[in-house]
Amino acid sequence: MNFCSQCGQAVEQKVPAGDSRPRYVCGHCDTIHYQNPNIVAGCIPVHDGRILMCRRAIEPRYGRWTLPAGFMENGEAVEEAATRETREEACAIVSNLQLYTVTSIVHVDQVQMLYLADLPHAKFAAGEETLEVALFSEDEIPWDQLAFETIHNALEFYFADRKNGTFPLRHIRIERNCRSQHSQPDHNAKKQQAHR
Amino acid sequence: MNFCSQCGQAVEQKVPAGDSRPRYVCGHCDTIHYQNPNIVAGCIPVHDGRILMCRRAIEPRYGRWTLPAGFMENGEAVEEAATRETREEACAIVSNLQLYTVTSIVHVDQVQMLYLADLPHAKFAAGEETLEVALFSEDEIPWDQLAFETIHNALEFYFADRKNGTFPLRHIRIERNCRSQHSQPDHNAKKQQAHR
Repeated sequence: MNFCSQCGQAVEQKVPAGDSRPRYVCGHCDTIHYQNPNIVAGCIPVHDGRILMCRRAIEPRYGRWTLPAGFMENGEAVEEAATRETREEACAIVSNLQLYTVTSIVHVDQVQMLYLADLPHAKFAAGEETLEVALFSEDEIPWDQLAFETIHNALEFYFADRKNGTFPLRHIRIERNCRSQHSQPDHNAKKQQAHR
Repeated sequence: MNFCSQCGQAVEQKVPAGDSRPRYVCGHCDTIHYQNPNIVAGCIPVHDGRILMCRRAIEPRYGRWTLPAGFMENGEAVEEAATRETREEACAIVSNLQLYTVTSIVHVDQVQMLYLADLPHAKFAAGEETLEVALFSEDEIPWDQLAFETIHNALEFYFADRKNGTFPLRHIRIERNCRSQHSQPDHNAKKQQAHR
């Protein structure tokens, strides 16, 4: 950031009064330009036990397989963003969304929120940002052609949890070195609940 | 937004090629300035069945009671943001965080994520943005002096769920008219899981 988006003058980086972090501040109109993480919302669309995946037609990871997901927009709820991205990228209509993974991708300032979703009808097609769309059973997943670590994690969790028949929320933190730390499933935290 | 934060020239609002929404676009350096929702992260700190709350020393809602929460910063995970805000606003150290409410506040482009958390020691004090901090039992909650609808919702859910001894994730959407829509607890969605 070089200039103030309000008045057009040059900004400087400094810690505003009462703050503890450097911000881009305009010395002319005193606007403080905060920068915060973005939400990426998406779905794990499930039809008859198979997962709907998209092959990316855009960078990064052109040609790699991913789940339908993208940046949440102003004026919508997270669940609406996940549904919209699935419609836009896979031309698919999902229902019964259940929040399943919340992944803080710290080094890129993103929080990815993926929902388990029902794909009632096997109707789908490639959207503008997609080369092809397909349903994959567990043994068909293109593990070595996945676009992102977060997609790999979500699919691993899904197939493991499906064996148990329950899908606890998965809370994940990924750092720059791309090792990820998985918390315990939230609602299995018996000890916490005992305190309450 | 009036000017490009990259080159300082005036921006215009238009729908970029391949996009479906109007964005602020710089005709000089072609930068597209996306605007997306922010995450507000916080805690419901619980000590011996009582909830730690803060009375706001800042606008909006100066003097009203709230839960420790604030904007997630770049370079941190959601859970870290909730822990930090609790430390900054209530000088309190929480542990065993469990994501409990995810509220899309559509008309202000925010997603509030509140965690149930243990407050092992009843040690707390007013931070810079707080007038006072106190522990409240269910019958002591200042319901008519709460700062935000989201805080009211979270506390209502908490005391209701505590009677059942389980705290399912609560997925909420609030619109401008301030009526809120509550989804079913996610992990009670038996029908969905049966499909999987």
